[in-house]
Amino acid sequence: MVLTESMREALRLAQDSVEAGGGPFGAVIVRGDEIVAGGCNQVVEARDPTAHAEVLAIRNAARKLGTHDLSGCRIYTSCEPCPMCLGAIYWARLESVTYGALRSDASEVGFDDELIYDEIQLPLEERRLKFEQEGHAEALKVLRAWRAKADRMEY
Amino acid sequence: MVLTESMREALRLAQDSVEAGGGPFGAVIVRGDEIVAGGCNQVVEARDPTAHAEVLAIRNAARKLGTHDLSGCRIYTSCEPCPMCLGAIYWARLESVTYGALRSDASEVGFDDELIYDEIQLPLEERRLKFEQEGHAEALKVLRAWRAKADRMEY
Repeated sequence: MVLTESMREALRLAQDSVEAGGGPFGAVIVRGDEIVAGGCNQVVEARDPTAHAEVLAIRNAARKLGTHDLSGCRIYTSCEPCPMCLGAIYWARLESVTYGALRSDASEVGFDDELIYDEIQLPLEERRLKFEQEGHAEALKVLRAWRAKADRMEY
Repeated sequence: MVLTESMREALRLAQDSVEAGGGPFGAVIVRGDEIVAGGCNQVVEARDPTAHAEVLAIRNAARKLGTHDLSGCRIYTSCEPCPMCLGAIYWARLESVTYGALRSDASEVGFDDELIYDEIQLPLEERRLKFEQEGHAEALKVLRAWRAKADRMEY
């Protein structure tokens, strides 16, 4: 099957990353027929646990387009996004996700995506990660102060 | 109830952000008794949909400590993390999450956290966001090329 140019570019970024010693993931943001920006996994190299291919592609596209709102753009990624990247995709208001490998494929080669997918669905008190609440009343006050501002920036 | 210094700082960052016209969220990363780094929501100001308080606190702490692995650190956040931030917390290997407001409180003032939590639990084909697969075989090849590398950086 012939791949779209966008998927070919996402896979090329992933392959180049492997060859450069980085994580095996690549992604591009596309608007209409144009590839706006791309990214590959840079977690170890950039010493940044959030530097996944999709997050970097989104950040690069947002910088290039000058807005946090990427409505009308699509993402092509070499692998189904992890929960962090999936969250970023929703916040960026992307229109669609085209992915190559499955999250189960990522797990097979050693990435923890499935664990995070499992954890995220559990109530806080049942997760492996410890959750505690503190300062609920004070925290609510801040949210409500924001809502009360006439000039708040909604997004 | 007296708040910990870490939570007071997270709430101060959130409140300062509201006053500066930003989103009403703040977070700090703590190691032992020391606040390593903090962040507040900068989505609109930085034109970056991934610039949530927790993501920025993690990125700032990782830069300061010179590693993507924040094992042994904890996060204090003014609000329960959204799925993107929760994913970032797992990838950073943080030890615990102390939160102020609930995600339902964030939804109440207009943030879409609940929608993303709902979506993330659904099979790809049942989500509102459109998902398509392309190039599975080619994408698998890249993952396996990475696994076959003797000098791959696991994380």
